[in-house]
Amino acid sequence: METLDENAAVISASKVTGTNVYNTDGDHLGEIYDVMLDKRSGNIAYAVMSFGGFLGIGERYHALPWQLSSTTRQGGYVVGLTVDQLKEAPTYAANELPAGGIAPLITA
Amino acid sequence: METLDENAAVISASKVTGTNVYNTDGDHLGEIYDVMLDKRSGNIAYAVMSFGGFLGIGERYHALPWQLSSTTRQGGYVVGLTVDQLKEAPTYAANELPAGGIAPLITA
Repeated sequence: METLDENAAVISASKVTGTNVYNTDGDHLGEIYDVMLDKRSGNIAYAVMSFGGFLGIGERYHALPWQLSSTTRQGGYVVGLTVDQLKEAPTYAANELPAGGIAPLITA
Repeated sequence: METLDENAAVISASKVTGTNVYNTDGDHLGEIYDVMLDKRSGNIAYAVMSFGGFLGIGERYHALPWQLSSTTRQGGYVVGLTVDQLKEAPTYAANELPAGGIAPLITA
């Protein structure tokens, strides 16, 4: 059924937020914390994934490109990112901007 | 200070949500209820404004084009929409899609 939250073409930011993120091995990496919007172009700049629990390093954030985040599986998004890659990737805390800007940090 | 929520180029969907919407006369029309994202293009499809209190017709929703929503004043967004225009404009309830699709319902 189509609702205000989602249809075939669009999805609300509030529905995206909180969605689980997995890698292609099925590991749970984190959740979508927020969606960053480009003020001028009207494009989605990137999605922000929060993680930290399983890494034991406190809550950290990781920028994910929107297009790569749009593959869904088991009720979540799937990204091509291993746990080791995530541990080594640039991350940022809640009061920081993404290190190195908003370039995609994962590859398909 | 730049934070995770906003900088000169980007703003988080969660910060946009709840922002007050005024018209050019300074009337408070409603609040941003959500931001709808185009799944394929990665564009912001439209913003959804909730209103209803002052019109006494229950909570209703109105699609606003993102670009027109981006003018800020007194901590809110300003749109070129009078209260009378809003009363007469197509609206939708929480379980409906915007009537007539997502075409901009206001003009600059």
